Amino acid sequence: MTAEKDIDVLISEVGPRDGLQSVVATMPTTLKREWISALAGAGLKEIEVGSFVPPKLLPQMADVADVVAHALTLPGLFVTALTPNLRGAEAAFVAGVHKITLPVSVSEAHSLANVRKSHVQMIEEVQAVVNLRNTRYPGVQIEAGLSTAFGCSLQGTVPEDDVIRLAVIMAECGVDEVGLSDTAGMANPRQIRSIYPRLRSAIGADKAGSAHLHNTYGQGLANVVAALEVGVTTFDASQGGIGGCPYAPGATGNIVTEDLVFLLESMGLRTGVDLDRLMAAREILKKGLPNEPLYGYLPEAGVPKGFCYAGRNV
Amino acid sequence: MTAEKDIDVLISEVGPRDGLQSVVATMPTTLKREWISALAGAGLKEIEVGSFVPPKLLPQMADVADVVAHALTLPGLFVTALTPNLRGAEAAFVAGVHKITLPVSVSEAHSLANVRKSHVQMIEEVQAVVNLRNTRYPGVQIEAGLSTAFGCSLQGTVPEDDVIRLAVIMAECGVDEVGLSDTAGMANPRQIRSIYPRLRSAIGADKAGSAHLHNTYGQGLANVVAALEVGVTTFDASQGGIGGCPYAPGATGNIVTEDLVFLLESMGLRTGVDLDRLMAAREILKKGLPNEPLYGYLPEAGVPKGFCYAGRNV
Repeated sequence: MTAEKDIDVLISEVGPRDGLQSVVATMPTTLKREWISALAGAGLKEIEVGSFVPPKLLPQMADVADVVAHALTLPGLFVTALTPNLRGAEAAFVAGVHKITLPVSVSEAHSLANVRKSHVQMIEEVQAVVNLRNTRYPGVQIEAGLSTAFGCSLQGTVPEDDVIRLAVIMAECGVDEVGLSDTAGMANPRQIRSIYPRLRSAIGADKAGSAHLHNTYGQGLANVVAALEVGVTTFDASQGGIGGCPYAPGATGNIVTEDLVFLLESMGLRTGVDLDRLMAAREILKKGLPNEPLYGYLPEAGVPKGFCYAGRNV
Repeated sequence: MTAEKDIDVLISEVGPRDGLQSVVATMPTTLKREWISALAGAGLKEIEVGSFVPPKLLPQMADVADVVAHALTLPGLFVTALTPNLRGAEAAFVAGVHKITLPVSVSEAHSLANVRKSHVQMIEEVQAVVNLRNTRYPGVQIEAGLSTAFGCSLQGTVPEDDVIRLAVIMAECGVDEVGLSDTAGMANPRQIRSIYPRLRSAIGADKAGSAHLHNTYGQGLANVVAALEVGVTTFDASQGGIGGCPYAPGATGNIVTEDLVFLLESMGLRTGVDLDRLMAAREILKKGLPNEPLYGYLPEAGVPKGFCYAGRNV
């Protein structure tokens, strides 16, 4: 998380990574650059711009180093990337990202399906990444993103104790932050209220990272309200709600950045994001992915008359 | 609100009224009956089955008395209807509904546009309806539904003081409950948390009625979470999110019953509703309105593996 005094809540835009890697089409590099510039121009201060994965597996991400290089030219933007393993992490370090996120599944079934590693193997991988960072790239932040932290399409229920145990192991490995991901969209506000205070007690408030909430069952913003109550201040979201939930075809993935900004600003929480500019960025996304459905209510309805951004005089 | 000891939250299904009166097509009476039966069969305990309005204005509601007669045959169902004026209220009383809701706009601009009455005229109308009820139909409940309580597409911001003042006047008129309607979908959780305690202080907890939340900007369930915190226990919702927000074309209206049930049950709050049966009712709605878009995430994604209803053993 970046330290920003002029905002109350940090929105980490993950569309260029979580969104673009989940669709069949590949967005042309020039449009990716244009889109990321527009997102940053709308006021988003942190963007996950891609995944460092083999192009054979995810051809949509083959240009990730180029995309990172462009993002690093944007003033004030905190540039992050997803890296599933040591090899990807090293490539991301070389590319110059400010932060990497390592996906670590709480559900072992999901871990095996997603990164083909058991818990033991994945913990070893995280440790190797931290060691590499410590030795050669000390300025780069590392977040462990705990997937399936609220339930798993393969395993079903995921016990809270398992989440906390893995979070502690991650902290012991030396990651800077541990975020929780609702990979399957199964989280509910009661769970959210219960788990975040435990997470902070277990690993310290400074290490408790972002909430990555999916909207598979339409519960995303409801969970944000609960998370705000228990002190979460960083939320992942994607423009147009693009992003993956391969186990729920037809259902949206991430919470929609546009609707999240509306929620937070109308609650009096400053995000730094301008909705009109965000809508302009959406046009570039549409151009880049002409055949993909985009989600979001605010984009359909338009910014309402009398809408008042947080901290601004009417 | 009905007194139900086996549920924690009452969902008042308004699709047959708010939904069906907002679409151009008219659902055939036989399918309306079938749909309402299926909704009740899914466990919904209160259904607003129609509006008592002139058929010239809303031909979709021309069969409302027939529909009420059918609904009254369903065991245990609490049957409600919307009535904009004395004439409609009398027709509803004659038809035998258990409760009527009178829409009273906090925004005078909206009042004039919606029911062609100033505040003074509308208050007189409510008083006349209460007098009629008291004299001739003493068993029927009356709710005043305060429209535009959280913002108005015409007026913009709606001051909280105006809402409370009108709620007190309604209580003084002798209505049984005062509900708040987010007609324009502009409510946010902070507003919700602020206004409901004030409403209860002003008119008494027993008179504080349902929350009627729209999803125009995608904030519906987020507002439910906040409303639950401040003690709201009755929520209006419509199957498939059908329902009106004429000022936001293309945007959904009411919060989606399916997604609301998912939220509440996953939070451990009993609704009495079975999701599989609710999905079966949705098929009848689809058949009745083949050309209308239906909303909802749960219907797209399906009930997730391991989903656990509140108060049931796994």
